[in-house]
Amino acid sequence: MATQTATQATTATTAQSLHDLERTLRRRRSIRTEDLDGIQRQLAGLPLGDVIRLVERQPAKRGAVLVRLLPPERAAALFDALDPAHQAEIVAALGREDVSGLFDNLGPEDRVRLLDNLPPEIAQRFLSDLDEDARAHTDVILGYEKGSVGRAMSPNVAMVGADARVRDVVDTLRSEVDSLETVYTAAVVGDERTLCGVVTLRDLFQAEPDDLVGDVMREAPTVHAADDAEDAARRLLSAGRLAFPVVDDGNRLVGLFTFDEAADIVEHADSEDSARQGGSESLKKPYLSTPVLKLVRSRIVWLLVLAVSAILTVQVLDIFEGTLEQVTQLSLFIPLLTGTGGNTGNQAATTVTRALALNDVSKGDILKVMWRELRVGATLGAVLGVLGLGIAWAVFGRDIGIVIGSTLFCVCAMSATVGGAMPIIAKSVGADPAVFSNPFISTFCDATGLIIYFLIAKAVLGL
Amino acid sequence: MATQTATQATTATTAQSLHDLERTLRRRRSIRTEDLDGIQRQLAGLPLGDVIRLVERQPAKRGAVLVRLLPPERAAALFDALDPAHQAEIVAALGREDVSGLFDNLGPEDRVRLLDNLPPEIAQRFLSDLDEDARAHTDVILGYEKGSVGRAMSPNVAMVGADARVRDVVDTLRSEVDSLETVYTAAVVGDERTLCGVVTLRDLFQAEPDDLVGDVMREAPTVHAADDAEDAARRLLSAGRLAFPVVDDGNRLVGLFTFDEAADIVEHADSEDSARQGGSESLKKPYLSTPVLKLVRSRIVWLLVLAVSAILTVQVLDIFEGTLEQVTQLSLFIPLLTGTGGNTGNQAATTVTRALALNDVSKGDILKVMWRELRVGATLGAVLGVLGLGIAWAVFGRDIGIVIGSTLFCVCAMSATVGGAMPIIAKSVGADPAVFSNPFISTFCDATGLIIYFLIAKAVLGL
Repeated sequence: MATQTATQATTATTAQSLHDLERTLRRRRSIRTEDLDGIQRQLAGLPLGDVIRLVERQPAKRGAVLVRLLPPERAAALFDALDPAHQAEIVAALGREDVSGLFDNLGPEDRVRLLDNLPPEIAQRFLSDLDEDARAHTDVILGYEKGSVGRAMSPNVAMVGADARVRDVVDTLRSEVDSLETVYTAAVVGDERTLCGVVTLRDLFQAEPDDLVGDVMREAPTVHAADDAEDAARRLLSAGRLAFPVVDDGNRLVGLFTFDEAADIVEHADSEDSARQGGSESLKKPYLSTPVLKLVRSRIVWLLVLAVSAILTVQVLDIFEGTLEQVTQLSLFIPLLTGTGGNTGNQAATTVTRALALNDVSKGDILKVMWRELRVGATLGAVLGVLGLGIAWAVFGRDIGIVIGSTLFCVCAMSATVGGAMPIIAKSVGADPAVFSNPFISTFCDATGLIIYFLIAKAVLGL
Repeated sequence: MATQTATQATTATTAQSLHDLERTLRRRRSIRTEDLDGIQRQLAGLPLGDVIRLVERQPAKRGAVLVRLLPPERAAALFDALDPAHQAEIVAALGREDVSGLFDNLGPEDRVRLLDNLPPEIAQRFLSDLDEDARAHTDVILGYEKGSVGRAMSPNVAMVGADARVRDVVDTLRSEVDSLETVYTAAVVGDERTLCGVVTLRDLFQAEPDDLVGDVMREAPTVHAADDAEDAARRLLSAGRLAFPVVDDGNRLVGLFTFDEAADIVEHADSEDSARQGGSESLKKPYLSTPVLKLVRSRIVWLLVLAVSAILTVQVLDIFEGTLEQVTQLSLFIPLLTGTGGNTGNQAATTVTRALALNDVSKGDILKVMWRELRVGATLGAVLGVLGLGIAWAVFGRDIGIVIGSTLFCVCAMSATVGGAMPIIAKSVGADPAVFSNPFISTFCDATGLIIYFLIAKAVLGL
């Protein structure tokens, strides 16, 4: 759980000094030694929330300087609040002694996430610096695959037997509070750590002190250590629970998956989905502290892939160049038609991608989804088609009107169906559903839409 | 907090019976009376998680039948787990007696969310059915604006004085557990409920029983009742905390904003952002239980707006029809160029929209963002432009190559800058940053890109 030492709402004065400090930092390319005292004083006056915000907006090197200027406890709290990728960069910019304090302060699951983001040789050095107990816990987590629940759980979980008295369990939680990830949820286990259920501290408070834990515990929705962490995280948040117990193949308790880890995971997953929808890679750290070249890198691959697939549209048009030469007017509608197809496809894809993320739709629903999207797309196409028919008829004559109207109808129906199916197909073959991002679907709909357009045009205009 | 009575991981057998039950339901347009007993038996065999999943996938009327077949406690837990919009539809399909039990079981903040989704006359009827205490709490929340923290907080918060002993506070929390929203966080207040700080139950467990609360409490990051609930929710989840105390203008405690409400709010906000990015309205309830006509409604307005703005592209092309007639080849590249511009703009817009949602970027950063995006876009444009120059030169000759290369460069630089600025402009004028959705930016980039294209073409080709 984050150990952020918290502060009152930002007052006008601290907002001012945050602003001043940002200005001081912006003025210099590198911070000079004679400025350090002043900056340290200004930092000391800021509430922790503002310091976090400040560091999140600076490049990593400058962030490292700021971390070094903070007293150890504040530095640890600040460090804990940063994204793992950002932590890793700051670690790389700090000296070994500065870092070990920060590292010791993290929980085992946070430590593993930071290790994942560090270059292997630095990660190894940190692991060897850990004391035996901390290393044992870290090793447990490192044993699971990336992206699994095991990798994100905490092994420091309170375990009690079903025959314990409520009074004793409360006492145990109290006396072991310092070594436990949370005291709000305890796992009830039988022989060999087999999970029987969970009790929350709230359940214990509601029971009589002499009750047996076995009588007040509940069946718990468990997650398996090998399960996908994002799915588990969404289930946890959506159930509004504090933690799920994590079990292995033999239903033995191996850890606890807590809501604060879940919140982190969902935030990152949503940033990734959102980036993918826009056709780029997720930044993994705050926008303003990401160098421009990293932004370029997060986008260039997708942009190239899309541009190369867009060459398809050039080829399609090349085939129909003769038609275009005969009726130049047809080219006026190209962006309108491809745009509408792309939009309809995107609407469907976005809706279905989100439904997949929230587990509202599963792989087996693909035909159901396509049938729904076909009807939705046809309805949308009918509305737009009638409008297109009317407007184009009025301005460019009956024949062009009929071509535009019927193309709009066909393109909408096709795009919605394809756009709805794509995320499910992606998931079926084990890819991220958001990988068929909106731009990808746009490009696909562009090419297919153009073919439909020219086929209809040739038929109607008799070319 | 959700009162879901939980169950072990779904076994193969229950997965089978869930499937059977779904098939039974699908076979019939309406459920016949003689089937009810069988369905009820099958329902009784399913873990609660599966029942929730089942109801989420059925139209509201059928969901209401299922709710009626469940024993009261299960029905309440199921109902609590549904989205407010879905709850409202089921309520509308149920009789008054069936509903009042479900309604009494919700916490005051959940009750308010359901009321917000009901037609006013039904909402009024429910309010008058509540007992005095419950109505008082509901009224407090109803007094705040929609979308504010006050509307989502719980007024049932534990309050203690700074001079209380740790032992006594633990005892109080224990004895009042049934009436409190949470026992894990207590607010420390002075005269007239002025907030002094918070203590978590963990803090209390770590302290000595005779310590004064004033010595173990922490300064708390507070939220104001009038604050935006989505911002507060993201801050809470990102800090990994259980609750923020909510205060009024005089720093007096009015309630507690808890992580489970925050998780709900963020889930809905992300669904909305995601829908907007795709150019549609958020569904507010599971995809498969949404009727096709509602899906059409969530998309048609945006699609029409976009189609109407796309008429701009027809007009732009109309202006350059002469040029197109002279060099038909120019029309071959229209989808490629507008597509690339749209993609670049979308990448920038998506990244900045997400950064705004996570508070990584604020309104004052607009120039900083535009300057970054201009550099990113120019770099992307340089890469694509050189490639475009080479390929188009090889296939269509030098002049066309130069036109395509320089258009790609200009379009990328322009689109990234505009795409990055739009979400911030939207936020500055008080609109949802996601309102300038990807399709909107595509359409804008289409029109502007075409103008750039033909101006460059006319200059280079000397038309």
